[in-house]
Amino acid sequence: MSILVVGSVALDSVQTPFGKKKEILGGSATFFSISASFFDKVNIIAAVGEDFPKKYLKLLKSRNIGTGGIAVNKGKTFRWEGRYEYDMNVAHTLATHLNVFKDFSPDIPDSLRKSRLLFLANIDPDLQDKVLRQMSSPALIACDSMNHWITNKKKSLERFLHKVDIFLLNDAEARQFTGEANIFKAAKAIVARGPKSVVIKKGEHGVIYYSKRSHFIAPAYPLEAVYDPTGAGDTFAGGVIGYLSRAGKITDNILRKSMIYGSIMASFAVEDFSVNRLLNISRADINKRYADFKKLTRF
Amino acid sequence: MSILVVGSVALDSVQTPFGKKKEILGGSATFFSISASFFDKVNIIAAVGEDFPKKYLKLLKSRNIGTGGIAVNKGKTFRWEGRYEYDMNVAHTLATHLNVFKDFSPDIPDSLRKSRLLFLANIDPDLQDKVLRQMSSPALIACDSMNHWITNKKKSLERFLHKVDIFLLNDAEARQFTGEANIFKAAKAIVARGPKSVVIKKGEHGVIYYSKRSHFIAPAYPLEAVYDPTGAGDTFAGGVIGYLSRAGKITDNILRKSMIYGSIMASFAVEDFSVNRLLNISRADINKRYADFKKLTRF
Repeated sequence: MSILVVGSVALDSVQTPFGKKKEILGGSATFFSISASFFDKVNIIAAVGEDFPKKYLKLLKSRNIGTGGIAVNKGKTFRWEGRYEYDMNVAHTLATHLNVFKDFSPDIPDSLRKSRLLFLANIDPDLQDKVLRQMSSPALIACDSMNHWITNKKKSLERFLHKVDIFLLNDAEARQFTGEANIFKAAKAIVARGPKSVVIKKGEHGVIYYSKRSHFIAPAYPLEAVYDPTGAGDTFAGGVIGYLSRAGKITDNILRKSMIYGSIMASFAVEDFSVNRLLNISRADINKRYADFKKLTRF
Repeated sequence: MSILVVGSVALDSVQTPFGKKKEILGGSATFFSISASFFDKVNIIAAVGEDFPKKYLKLLKSRNIGTGGIAVNKGKTFRWEGRYEYDMNVAHTLATHLNVFKDFSPDIPDSLRKSRLLFLANIDPDLQDKVLRQMSSPALIACDSMNHWITNKKKSLERFLHKVDIFLLNDAEARQFTGEANIFKAAKAIVARGPKSVVIKKGEHGVIYYSKRSHFIAPAYPLEAVYDPTGAGDTFAGGVIGYLSRAGKITDNILRKSMIYGSIMASFAVEDFSVNRLLNISRADINKRYADFKKLTRF
């Protein structure tokens, strides 16, 4: 099938207990698309500034990612600065400079409006809706969100979620969105509010999938070292949507497998800064971790 | 086969966000034996005081648990008082009155020395060793421990662990014991120090099994309400050892299944105070959750 992702392409400055990196390639659409590119063709809709390094656009193209929808606008590229302590489940944002991303209001080129799978990364829910209204009936609509929109645009988000097949968010966001401390109650409460299904990402503790018809839980792929968790969630989503696209149809079983592939893609992403580790793996590495995971979890 | 558990039979006073109970039946051997009793015959070695309610001994007997090894000693029964906040992964101990348990130094009756499966619940590692030296080559030796012994009797514990087949502890204890923040590194480091295998219990986040030859990870059984986590770890161990005993042999596959049964027994235990929920379930309830768990985790 064909995948469209709408989100950010950014420059990140990241500190973890294992190092400090300045202005490295980041952004939700970046992590998502590189992850998905291992499975199928993906196109990006995003905006960067005039200062965005050409080498990064080249890098995306070299992965056969469609970059025609990345507008280069007057001004500077979106920048995020963050820090992680030893507990890497929590990102401490030091600074967010939206720059050109502040005026991001995506118009989808005609050629991409027929994309079959749509991933709306974490942007204003009103923009997510604006994108969706331009599409001609995608087979699957998935979206992410974050605490900022849950706090400031809850009504918009709730309205939009009724149109969504898979809503992905992390455990803290799920609790915030529903006011439920228990994560399974939260999952149920989210689906009661509109989306067909929800995927709650619990970082090193795995993932929960909940829809009215099916429930799935999986641990995370075990890692002995995590260097930088930035982008793990979007990389996960890229693996999920990428696998679904490659499978060509969506059954309960394919959906479960897609989440394992998502976890495995995320497990690579966090093993180095930026997308560095993702650029150094092959399909064989992914398949090896999938087989390992099967062995690790079977009973 | 036949199971012997050496541990505490106690009176607990527990506060959780869902209620407050005074002097209810508790203790590691209690939770373990009631859990294991769903699978096979289990005998307890413990000591209580003269104040220990007869009805609780009757209750254990009614589950076909061997109570002949529970000494009734001059003095008061071991009492524990604890509190849980909404994050039930952490118990806050308010008071520990060892009472008769202070002088607990188990002599194993001849009739029980040939028990095939031995579970040494959380007691002084020197006592665990003393018990083991009285046994005539059990087929499986499992033990638990806690932060107190890791801090104060580390040498004894490390010496003893060389004799152990399965060492069960929780994630915080595994980190404390090894000084490793990463839980998989901790698992590996523990096995490098002596026991044939380790089971790290992560509460609502599931369980990790690690030996040199096999690794297994499983999420916890999903629960929408946890009322009192006291005894969950010992109930888990009871399910594991109970299932292994009933199976009559220990293969990698049987071991994996035993941990799922352990998780399921623990999932019942935390749904009410003390052992109340465990007393209200049948094998059919256990089998139903096992089937649910299979469906929830398959991919």
